[in-house]
Amino acid sequence: MAISIIKIGGNVIDNEKKLEKFLQLFSSLKGDKILVHGGGKIATQIAADLGVETQMVEGRRITDAPMREVVTMVYGGKVNKTIVASLQSLGTNAIGLSGADGGVILAEKRPVKDIDYGYVGDVKQVNGSFIQSLLLQKVTPVFAPLSFDPEYGILNTNADTQASAIAVEMAKIRDVNLVYCFEKKGVLKDADDEESVIAKLDRASYENYKKEGIIHSGMIPKLDNAFEAVKAGVRKVIICEADDLLNAVENSSRGTTIRL
Amino acid sequence: MAISIIKIGGNVIDNEKKLEKFLQLFSSLKGDKILVHGGGKIATQIAADLGVETQMVEGRRITDAPMREVVTMVYGGKVNKTIVASLQSLGTNAIGLSGADGGVILAEKRPVKDIDYGYVGDVKQVNGSFIQSLLLQKVTPVFAPLSFDPEYGILNTNADTQASAIAVEMAKIRDVNLVYCFEKKGVLKDADDEESVIAKLDRASYENYKKEGIIHSGMIPKLDNAFEAVKAGVRKVIICEADDLLNAVENSSRGTTIRL
Repeated sequence: MAISIIKIGGNVIDNEKKLEKFLQLFSSLKGDKILVHGGGKIATQIAADLGVETQMVEGRRITDAPMREVVTMVYGGKVNKTIVASLQSLGTNAIGLSGADGGVILAEKRPVKDIDYGYVGDVKQVNGSFIQSLLLQKVTPVFAPLSFDPEYGILNTNADTQASAIAVEMAKIRDVNLVYCFEKKGVLKDADDEESVIAKLDRASYENYKKEGIIHSGMIPKLDNAFEAVKAGVRKVIICEADDLLNAVENSSRGTTIRL
Repeated sequence: MAISIIKIGGNVIDNEKKLEKFLQLFSSLKGDKILVHGGGKIATQIAADLGVETQMVEGRRITDAPMREVVTMVYGGKVNKTIVASLQSLGTNAIGLSGADGGVILAEKRPVKDIDYGYVGDVKQVNGSFIQSLLLQKVTPVFAPLSFDPEYGILNTNADTQASAIAVEMAKIRDVNLVYCFEKKGVLKDADDEESVIAKLDRASYENYKKEGIIHSGMIPKLDNAFEAVKAGVRKVIICEADDLLNAVENSSRGTTIRL
């Protein structure tokens, strides 16, 4: 049976009720599964309370030394352990992991070019055999968006690319479905019409939608990333709303399914 | 070969240089090993910065809901992940665990009698087979002082008793040495003379030292706890200074060794 690797972002994490509902769905999902969560806005709030200034460049957080302490605490402690505890209470034997734990996500500190992102990591290597050993014990890994570089320590990492790197690595030994839960019902033909979900995308139809200007701006890097994952062996990538998780994964009746 | 289970407290955690030196010693310790860390004073500082008031009763922290968020972040995030990352950089494949992770330390929220300690847990069950599966993979568990109750979630837990509960459980399947690192060189005959370490204690000599008033006050619960552990199957308990870890564990030339 395939592994489901599910990524949730700030829109779910920052909303207690949404998160609770999502975790119930995730918990009831059959088969082996992995959760990758983003950071959410709570880090910005806690940083401010602790007198640590948040600097963003093009929507990305600059992670200097004090901010790294905050994201380690908030993503690796508060958010991750809260999710793990909720899943345990729901009967899913979850384990929380940063990239440092078990050396499971090794990364390289992003080289400084025009912008110094600080302690931000680009994933280099995923320890798939360790993840598989947990799955074989019916333990469900829950990843915080933190990777590890032996030289620089814990690094803040984009959860989308971390989920994709884990999926690609696991696809070497298992069938893998990668699911991005986001704030829309899927990839939309018309941004103003929530019901205009494109149910299936392959490389050819994607290129067409781009040419026609139907798919544009922010969706392009997300979908490029999805196509890279399927090209690298992931069976399918699904983009859907968190509420639709079960229908999207179990019978593809919700969200957008991306295949080669 | 025996498992070494080492507990460090606030005096090591709060001192960056001491912690670094200790982790080097711990990393070089041969054989399977487990680290259990306490909280340290940093939680009090961060709580204050976040506007959460610290209430202590008889040296114990009252853990209300906001304080639980703080200790989850600080013990489970900041302290735990910092230790794990340092150990990884030293070549020890560490994994950070709260009691919720893998359902590894199940506890019961302490019943309210005279004092309501809030979200504080008394350990009920340790998942020894999961810990053993990590050790077999040459993964070194690093426990934050947090346990888990399916009804109440994450609970703040005394690191000494957590270390002892883990040791007693692992002693069912392996030889176990339990080591408490603390601020003195061992159990002292004369509190003012750091060199007056009692090298060996058994039940009879312990009773004598107590009768003579040489061992008193704060050491008594610590030693009672140690004797309970050896009575329950732990091979020996060592009480020593963090700096003396290797000599204490590998040739018993430092610290106080407690056997039945």
